[in-house]
Amino acid sequence: MSEDEPRWLNASELDAWKVFSAMLIKLPAALDAQLRNDAGLNQFEYLVLAGLSEAPARTLRMSELAVLANGSLSRLSHVVKRLEGYGYVRREPCPVDGRYTNALLTEEGYRKLADSAPGHVRHVRSLVVDSLEPEQIEQLRLISLRILRVMDPDLVGDSGVAWPERR
Amino acid sequence: MSEDEPRWLNASELDAWKVFSAMLIKLPAALDAQLRNDAGLNQFEYLVLAGLSEAPARTLRMSELAVLANGSLSRLSHVVKRLEGYGYVRREPCPVDGRYTNALLTEEGYRKLADSAPGHVRHVRSLVVDSLEPEQIEQLRLISLRILRVMDPDLVGDSGVAWPERR
Repeated sequence: MSEDEPRWLNASELDAWKVFSAMLIKLPAALDAQLRNDAGLNQFEYLVLAGLSEAPARTLRMSELAVLANGSLSRLSHVVKRLEGYGYVRREPCPVDGRYTNALLTEEGYRKLADSAPGHVRHVRSLVVDSLEPEQIEQLRLISLRILRVMDPDLVGDSGVAWPERR
Repeated sequence: MSEDEPRWLNASELDAWKVFSAMLIKLPAALDAQLRNDAGLNQFEYLVLAGLSEAPARTLRMSELAVLANGSLSRLSHVVKRLEGYGYVRREPCPVDGRYTNALLTEEGYRKLADSAPGHVRHVRSLVVDSLEPEQIEQLRLISLRILRVMDPDLVGDSGVAWPERR
């Protein structure tokens, strides 16, 4: 085996990867489809609204929100601009330090999120949470956390991502 | 609690969902980035080439390949058209039943896949396979399979998705 030869996946790794990668393609599409049909949002936009809804004064620095965007401020800017167009989000200079830009959930954005949440939670339950045993849900958390940490070794705590608590 | 009130996620479900949904957004982006930089392909295109490479005569009906595309022939057609433009895939009427269209991996497409596979496997290992314990890999397979089956109750067998064995 040459030095350049990779360690190919063994049979059980390959089986798992096939099924996992199919799920990686299909589940986000299914989540997006529900949100798009029922709320006119994609999953990423929903996540931004949800992240803001949890923050003090429903406001976050764009750089904090970018954690949701895999660290990419440019991807986030694009999404926030769209949400601003819908009237759900407003951007303004940070009153504490004007070099930063804040994103703020508007009243309309909050209502949009509150209206969208029940349908989305039902969908998440039926596709994921209710189809798994409680131990599998905990395993899924640990597995996802390990994968996230490889991509972002600085990730501390158990999440790094905001998500709406029950309101 | 009204009948319309959804069952909100409890604390441990919510923790798991936050981390899992962050992974769902970030991992496909990371997989795509590697393939795009190193091979000029996205994950879906790679999956199509890989699926064809495993098939007898490196040929599949478009409807069979569509399994990879979450059942959407139109999404698949779009991707196959692009791959055809690169010279990696050819479409032709099925010689057995001319009502069907076959997709066929060209020699150039096969070489492209063979050239791209080592780098992709290394990336998949570092992000996913090597970051998990063997029991977690098996758990991930079972969890993914359950989720896939909710989306597609007709899914039989352990996969329904083709993926390249070591060539």
